[in-house]
Amino acid sequence: MHIALDAMGGDHGPRELIAGALAAAEQADLDVLLVGNETVLARHVQELAAGRDGGRRLEIVHAPTTVGMDENPVDAIRKKRDSSIMVAFELVKSGRAAAAVSAGNSGATLAAAVRILGRLKNVARPGLASIFPTLKGPVVIMDVGANVECRPIHLYQFAVMASAFSRLYHVEKPRVGLLTIGEESGKGNSLVKETYALLQKSALNFIGNVEGRDVFKGDVDVIVCDGFVGNICLKISEGLAESAMKMLRDEIVKSPLAKLGYLLARPAFKKFQKRVDYAEYGGAPLLGIKGSGIICHGKSSAYAIKNALIEAMEMERLKINDFISRELEGGVTVQPEVA
Amino acid sequence: MHIALDAMGGDHGPRELIAGALAAAEQADLDVLLVGNETVLARHVQELAAGRDGGRRLEIVHAPTTVGMDENPVDAIRKKRDSSIMVAFELVKSGRAAAAVSAGNSGATLAAAVRILGRLKNVARPGLASIFPTLKGPVVIMDVGANVECRPIHLYQFAVMASAFSRLYHVEKPRVGLLTIGEESGKGNSLVKETYALLQKSALNFIGNVEGRDVFKGDVDVIVCDGFVGNICLKISEGLAESAMKMLRDEIVKSPLAKLGYLLARPAFKKFQKRVDYAEYGGAPLLGIKGSGIICHGKSSAYAIKNALIEAMEMERLKINDFISRELEGGVTVQPEVA
Repeated sequence: MHIALDAMGGDHGPRELIAGALAAAEQADLDVLLVGNETVLARHVQELAAGRDGGRRLEIVHAPTTVGMDENPVDAIRKKRDSSIMVAFELVKSGRAAAAVSAGNSGATLAAAVRILGRLKNVARPGLASIFPTLKGPVVIMDVGANVECRPIHLYQFAVMASAFSRLYHVEKPRVGLLTIGEESGKGNSLVKETYALLQKSALNFIGNVEGRDVFKGDVDVIVCDGFVGNICLKISEGLAESAMKMLRDEIVKSPLAKLGYLLARPAFKKFQKRVDYAEYGGAPLLGIKGSGIICHGKSSAYAIKNALIEAMEMERLKINDFISRELEGGVTVQPEVA
Repeated sequence: MHIALDAMGGDHGPRELIAGALAAAEQADLDVLLVGNETVLARHVQELAAGRDGGRRLEIVHAPTTVGMDENPVDAIRKKRDSSIMVAFELVKSGRAAAAVSAGNSGATLAAAVRILGRLKNVARPGLASIFPTLKGPVVIMDVGANVECRPIHLYQFAVMASAFSRLYHVEKPRVGLLTIGEESGKGNSLVKETYALLQKSALNFIGNVEGRDVFKGDVDVIVCDGFVGNICLKISEGLAESAMKMLRDEIVKSPLAKLGYLLARPAFKKFQKRVDYAEYGGAPLLGIKGSGIICHGKSSAYAIKNALIEAMEMERLKINDFISRELEGGVTVQPEVA
């Protein structure tokens, strides 16, 4: 299977991305189409792939321009049709690649994916899901920023799409929770209250409302919310994790004894960090489009890129989109006119 | 100054609350009116206050009933007018107490405060603020759950009220941020976009949009959002902090070397925990009511209660409500008809 990688996006540049592609090609049964400036990419590939098995499974596809991390997404995809992000999704559309992965400008990646591949049949709004680590298995939260204002039918569809995606984690009947501010059914804003009724009537394994404090407990597999709330949850969690580690480090370096203690406990810290590291989970899957797309964090390491490429491959291998289409076509008790 | 304490609320029962009251009375210049079942309270006071200076500054005010943690707030305040929560706020209304503190049913506390004391003049919606620790000073976030659906004028007023409250942290011109999902002014849902315009026209020190990842950085003193988003932020942060510590502990106990290391680094951990502990900040201030009220976490320790009582005293001493009234009366460029 071929996966297209926007090899120009991300904060660390092509080298890190290509290293991730090489690792993916060596670990899983996939080929990577590296999309970007061929001169730049060829140089890095030559250096990195020398004497490695994965080298045979990389192919460069030229894209003359790139979209900057701070460029306006809408402008970018209109004006830069030959950018690495756009070309990556064109490869999916033409069938040369099964899926695309980008760590570049996320707004532009989202817009390019929807524009070029189009929505899956019966999907009102494609969205972005994110995988959060918990005390137990991962939880898939959707939407985390693609849809700022939502209606109940959108949240219902996010639940269907995220449930299909959680097949990647071998979850048979994913437990779906609705993010709100109280456990009882009457709690929340009007969007939540109406969505509750919709989810309850659906064929999904809806377990009811979940609160912010339940997100990391691991007793639910899928959590739905609008993209405004979801994005804030994602960012506040990242910000807290980062700041807390910084504060803890600050306190540890103040005392030689604490520093020694930290050194001894370091393997445990590393294991903890691996457990909570977003890089373990690849990237945020774009769901509801014709094809598979993964949006990675700009600061993604080669390791995160490797996992994202494998994640994209798994989405295709497990035919996540077929599940979504089928579920939204006949398998539900909720009719589209509810919207 | 007398502060009323609902001495029956909270997960740990009266003993913990009274211990907090004693500590507050010994640390600061305040007297505590312990509200609740006098037989129960007298027994605890006798045991705890024996031979302690603070004992003279405690007084019991009988309230025959209590509101359970899970009781419906609206029903509770209608039916239990003689409950410890209601009596505590009645003491504020009658002038016997300057402020009230409760670690009991927060919905009922909020409802009792608004019902009994009423709104401050010019305040459309009283709200609940919460103090988050950051890499630098604390940040005051409002609203965190009292107002699920808000209009721009409400968020503007939250900004005024939280700015006034941040006088407790010696902040002269509090920097106000608007919580949303992108830094540029056009980012967010319609509530955020309209509020942006309102804040920009106001006399507040508005620094623009802030994202979830900025919350813990400490570059902003006040963050406004609707109560739905704010409550989810509060709960997800608590949940993440709790789960992360649990995961880290899980990894540490697996290895004897890591356990030894942890013991050596323990003072640093303690200092870190003190820095991020909500108990340091007392409780969530109820702003916009005639009087001062603090809602504490149900699981508040005596230490948290002590800090909440001192926080309530400071709110009165610094005349936070006068600032709010003055700001909402004449000092703003925004007129009420904006609503």
